[in-house]
This record gives sequence, C-alpha cells and structure tokens, in this order.
Amino acid sequence: MRQWKNILIPYEQAIGELKVKFKAIRAEYRKRNEYSPIEFVTGRVKRVSSIIEKAKKYGIDEKNIEQEIEDIAGIRIMCQFEDDIYRVLELIKARDGKDLTIVYEKDYINNQKDSGYRSYHVIIRYPVQTAYGEKNILAEIQIRTLAMNFWATIEHSVNYKYKNDIPENIKLRLKKSAEAAHRLDEEMLKIRDEVINAQKLFELKSNT
Amino acid sequence: MRQWKNILIPYEQAIGELKVKFKAIRAEYRKRNEYSPIEFVTGRVKRVSSIIEKAKKYGIDEKNIEQEIEDIAGIRIMCQFEDDIYRVLELIKARDGKDLTIVYEKDYINNQKDSGYRSYHVIIRYPVQTAYGEKNILAEIQIRTLAMNFWATIEHSVNYKYKNDIPENIKLRLKKSAEAAHRLDEEMLKIRDEVINAQKLFELKSNT
Amino acid sequence: MRQWKNILIPYEQAIGELKVKFKAIRAEYRKRNEYSPIEFVTGRVKRVSSIIEKAKKYGIDEKNIEQEIEDIAGIRIMCQFEDDIYRVLELIKARDGKDLTIVYEKDYINNQKDSGYRSYHVIIRYPVQTAYGEKNILAEIQIRTLAMNFWATIEHSVNYKYKNDIPENIKLRLKKSAEAAHRLDEEMLKIRDEVINAQKLFELKSNT
Amino acid sequence: MRQWKNILIPYEQAIGELKVKFKAIRAEYRKRNEYSPIEFVTGRVKRVSSIIEKAKKYGIDEKNIEQEIEDIAGIRIMCQFEDDIYRVLELIKARDGKDLTIVYEKDYINNQKDSGYRSYHVIIRYPVQTAYGEKNILAEIQIRTLAMNFWATIEHSVNYKYKNDIPENIKLRLKKSAEAAHRLDEEMLKIRDEVINAQKLFELKSNT
Repeated sequence: MRQWKNILIPYEQAIGELKVKFKAIRAEYRKRNEYSPIEFVTGRVKRVSSIIEKAKKYGIDEKNIEQEIEDIAGIRIMCQFEDDIYRVLELIKARDGKDLTIVYEKDYINNQKDSGYRSYHVIIRYPVQTAYGEKNILAEIQIRTLAMNFWATIEHSVNYKYKNDIPENIKLRLKKSAEAAHRLDEEMLKIRDEVINAQKLFELKSNT
Repeated sequence: MRQWKNILIPYEQAIGELKVKFKAIRAEYRKRNEYSPIEFVTGRVKRVSSIIEKAKKYGIDEKNIEQEIEDIAGIRIMCQFEDDIYRVLELIKARDGKDLTIVYEKDYINNQKDSGYRSYHVIIRYPVQTAYGEKNILAEIQIRTLAMNFWATIEHSVNYKYKNDIPENIKLRLKKSAEAAHRLDEEMLKIRDEVINAQKLFELKSNT
Repeated sequence: MRQWKNILIPYEQAIGELKVKFKAIRAEYRKRNEYSPIEFVTGRVKRVSSIIEKAKKYGIDEKNIEQEIEDIAGIRIMCQFEDDIYRVLELIKARDGKDLTIVYEKDYINNQKDSGYRSYHVIIRYPVQTAYGEKNILAEIQIRTLAMNFWATIEHSVNYKYKNDIPENIKLRLKKSAEAAHRLDEEMLKIRDEVINAQKLFELKSNT
Repeated sequence: MRQWKNILIPYEQAIGELKVKFKAIRAEYRKRNEYSPIEFVTGRVKRVSSIIEKAKKYGIDEKNIEQEIEDIAGIRIMCQFEDDIYRVLELIKARDGKDLTIVYEKDYINNQKDSGYRSYHVIIRYPVQTAYGEKNILAEIQIRTLAMNFWATIEHSVNYKYKNDIPENIKLRLKKSAEAAHRLDEEMLKIRDEVINAQKLFELKSNT
C-alpha cells in the first residue's frame, strides 16, 4: 500500500494538470463569447483497491500494471450535445505530439456496449515532471454528453452494489434507461440544429 | 454600475457560504459511507444587466429590487433521483430558523411550467456578516435532478438566443425534450426502487 | 480511529465555513478598493494522533476531549502590520452573538511566551448544521503578522523534530530569531505610520 | 482593451498550469514525508493598465510588448530558508527543455537592488495549447523567502501609493526594514543548519 501511494503521485499530478488544461479551453471560449463544446470536466485517480482488483480480474502481473491498466488516471469531459463530442476530439487531436500523445481511441458512441454504455474514450500518454525527473504515464479521457454521464453514474453505483453481477431484471431496467437517455440526447440534438438553422436563416436575411 | 458592484458584495458572500454549506452535506454522507441525496451544488449571483432587465420587465422600482427580485443570489442543488429532491427539502427545513429562514416554496415538480420546466424552488432569507455589519438578503435555492438540470440549461441558452421570444416550432421541440428528460427520470427512479427493494430482500433473508 | 473520523466531520465543516467567511472580509475590502487588515487565511483540523497525544499530555479524559481541547478546529488569520491584528479582533467581536460566540481571548502579543511565540488567540463556539442536526463546536482563531507566522512555522517544525524537547542552544537560536521577527514587525509598523502620516499631511494641504 | 482581453487569455492559462505544476512539487514532497523547499506558490497576470504603463515608461512599442515585457505572466515561489531558493532553482533547471525553456536569470539575492529588494528571477518561455493552436509566451518566476516576500509586498504598496516617487525618508525606512528582513533570514538559516547538524550527529551516533 505504502509503495502504491508513491507510485500514484505522478498520476495525481497528471490529473491536476489535465483538469486545468481542459477547463482552460472552456474558459477560453467563454472569454471570447463563443460556444464551448466542453460543459464541465472532472478527474480522478483510481483507488489502489480498485487497481489491484482490476489486475486480478484480467490476470495482469503486478509489474505490468502501469503499462496494462490504462485508466489509473481518468479524465471525464462532459458536453451538452452529441456533436460536441467530436469537436472535443478534434481539440485533443490538435495537441497530439505536443503536450500529450494519443495511443488509441475507443468509440462507444457508434458501438455502444451491451449494457447500454455510450462514451468516446481516448487513451493518451502524458509526460509528468516530478521532483525526481520525467515520468510518462497512461491516462484515459472519456468524452460524453450530460445524459450519457448521468446514466453511467447510475450504472456504476448499481455495478458497485451488485459487485458486477447485476440480476437480469435490473440489467433490463438499465438498458431501458439507457434508451431513455439516448432519446433525450436525440431530442436535444434536434433543438441544437434548429437553433443553428434559425440563426443561419437570420444571417442570410440580414445580408440581403 | 459602480453602486451595484457594492450592493452585490453580500450576495456574493452568501453564495460562497451556502455553496460550502451544501457541499459539506454531500461530504458528510460520503465520509459516513452513506448515500448522498445531493450530487453536486452550483451557485451564482445574477449579473447587474439581468437584474435591471428583470426589474424593467416586471415594473419593479429600483429601490424595491432587493425585496422583490428573489433570485439575485441563486443556489442550485442537483440530485440523481426525483425522490432525493424531497430529502434535500427536509434537510433545508431542518435548518429553518437556524442559519437561514424559509420565506416560501414553489413546487414546479408537481406543477410543471407550460414550457416543460421542472424544479423545486425554496426562497430563503439569509443573514450575512459584512465588514459593515449584518445584512439579511433573499436567496433562491433550486433543487432538481440531473435530467431536469440538463434540460433547463438548454432552455436557458435557447431563451437567451431568442430573447424570450421563442418560435412556436422550437417551443414544441423543447416540450418534447422535456418529456424525454422526464421519462429518463422515471426510468431511473424505477432502478432506484429495484435496487433498494433487492437490498431489503437480501437483508430480510439474512435475518431469518 | 473510525469513530474519530465521524466526530471530526462537523469540525471540518466549521473550518470550511470559517475560511470562506474570513476570506470574504478580505474580498469585500478589495472590492471596495479599501485596505484589508486580513492578508490571508488558513485553517486545519487537528490530526487524530495529535488530539490523542495532547489529551494524554494534559491528562484529559477521552470523553472530555471535545470540551477541553479548544484547537481541534483551528483558523489562522495573517495580517501585514501589528495594528491590523486589533482591527481583525474588532471584526470578530462585532459578530459575537451572531454567527459565533466568543468564549475567551489569549493575548500573546503583549504577553509573549517564553519561547518567543507571539499571536492573539480567540476561542469561539460555532454552531454547525449537520445532516443529523445542529452541533456546537469550539474553535481557535489565531491572529498574527506575517513575520510572527513565519517564526511560528519554523518553531513548529523544530518542536516536531525534537518532540517538544528542544536543546538549550537551539532554544536560544529560536529566541534570537523571534527577536529578529519582532524587529521586522516594528520596522514595518513605522513605515505604515509614515505612509499614513504622509497621506494625512497631503490631505491637510489640499484642504487649505 | 477588448483586444487585450483576448491577448491575455493564453497568459492566464499559463499561470493556471504553472501554479498547478509548482504546487504539485510541494504536494509530492509532502506525500513522501520529505522536506519541501517550496512553502507556497502564487501567480497573477499583469493588469492591462500596468502593462501599458510599463510600455510607456520604457518606450516599448505596442507591437513589441509581448516580446519585451517579460512579466505579463508572473509566478512567485516562496521558501522558508534562503538555501531552499537554490534547490527550487535546480528543480526548474531540471525541466529546462522539457515543459519550459529558461531564457535567462537575474540574481537579486547576491546582487540586491538599491531599494533593498531581494529575490531570484528566472525568465522562461512556456508553450500553451489554446483552442486556436500552440502559443509560446514569456513568464517570470520569482523565488524568494517568506521574509523577502513580506518586505516586497509592503514596498509594492508604498510604491503604488507614491507612484514610484517615494520620499527619501520613507526610502530610508524601507531600507532599514529590508535589513531587518535580511537579519531574520540569516537567523532562520542558522537554525536550519543547527537542526540539520543535530540530525547528522544523531545519525552518526546511531551508526557506531
């Protein structure tokens, strides 16, 4: 445990830096009076007990944990509309090779999980300057709408309560609520389009 | 404007204190390993331009603004489930006459607005100790689920863009998305009940 | 330990609230473009190990700890000049009987400790609204200049290293540095007076 | 003004990132139960009015301001002891060419200003990823003890009041207080050495 406390120090530092960096993007758009595709940002370092549990579950040797568990450091970016997810993705790609390196992506928006889970994941490599030199760590960025996040939070609590062995009837309930969350995102997206279309119409009129 | 900057100082202070107080409730439940009915808390002081606009709209004389505009200081408490809203309400009522006084309540959960808006509002009076003595101010606490909050945020942007004169077809779209948000809350509530029922069943079995 | 974790919850809440309240005073003066007697504010809850150690040292029975150890919750207010300490004291007295109650005061400015320690202490009773009702706790407010705080921080580290059994030669060194800190405060106070006098002279001239 | 608001956005972002990074060093030492040479960190972006004033004073053309005014973004690192300043300097040099580049250094510790001012300055170039691409900005890091900082804060207020035209008698007072601050640092440094020597003696004894 003691040893893990030290191993996790650069991960905590990375989360601190990445939260500040993504929150700054939102602040930047706001200061320019522009629409921000980022609504809010959270971050956390996985608890030691959860790391060890995950390693056991997937048969990962303790010495490989830092290479094979990619979400020890986790950043979550919440968007108002599904379209915004792809704008955030572009912002991350634009800094690839600069202050971070993209390792790979997982698109659970177009390929939602059986459970109903939807989100876009980007695994990155991020260099941290510690008091003992540079360390490169892996981090997972999850990009999702507010509705996707709401559902995922509930599913996480349910999973935790049933220790990943959710009864079939509750699984069904979760799927139904995932569909309700999805419908909400679809309805919202239609408003976004209408609002933007209405604005374009207005500008067209003004220019003639 | 200059004068307003000074008038708003105790309101900013009240928001700072109330945010810390309601966030502490969440922290308390977490530290006790208990379920918190509060998911997160935000707060803001209304901008001077919005205060003046509202006063004009409702024909409020400038000298009565602090008595008649009740949401100059606004606190928003977000819950995971609709049931939690009433638990938060009980927590507020328990401190009535202590560090705050309840003025009145508006139940937009059972009486949703025509627009589709749902939330529970509590207007309170809150004493602030300033460098120049005590000042009693009014504040509005809005209690809502994450889905209600998501919808209200979008509606607010749309209202802002159309300056409260939303076209009929967009009003309809907003109503449809309000219904989708409501359905999501209903689905979520069913899971909450099932999870709690399952737990009770488990405890019954364990005790026999 | 587990039990202590719960006992300390309202103390942590009190510290959160009191920090926000005293920082707000500073913010208020700044917004009014006035000089703030408060430079910065810190706060902490005593660690369980330190509480138990202190109880043993003074022969305090465990069930009396909350009544007899007055600094479980500690707030520290730092001032630029010695004069400011008394202005902060007036601000605290002005809210006595409102959101806090003064229990008693300890003036280590005019009666400095043998070690060289100088600060003004105010013991207060503060009501906290928890999820399980109101609880009245004791808290200690320490008011000091930046130089007093600098010295006290160093003395604390030295005490910690020598477990309160500081060798005589180091005690002497500490006293000499306490004198240097005191001289710095005296020099600074003279500048404050000169600056204020110069301003008064200027105003006198302007008005004739 | 409007334009300046946008120019300053990456500077504000840089300050946010650099504060998190240097605070993380302190947190790292603390988590490892080691002494941290960093006591606390502050940061600020120069106000537009001060930038323009400085440009006028030094005859800097508006289009060269970002290249020639090096302290638009300013980070301040406070240490307990003078020795710590050089340890912080080593930490900054260790990341030169990684997340920042050192441009040059100004040693006002060994070459104190006539006014009495003492501090170690490092001018760096720092890359910021904005929503519109990468931007390299200049920033000034000031490293100083708590006593140096205390004095510098007072001198800044005095300068501000007298608009950089301080009367001779007050200049003298400031110099005397700078000496008092310097003596305090010297006394403190002696304690640090004694504490460390005492510890070494203890370890020597233990190992024989």
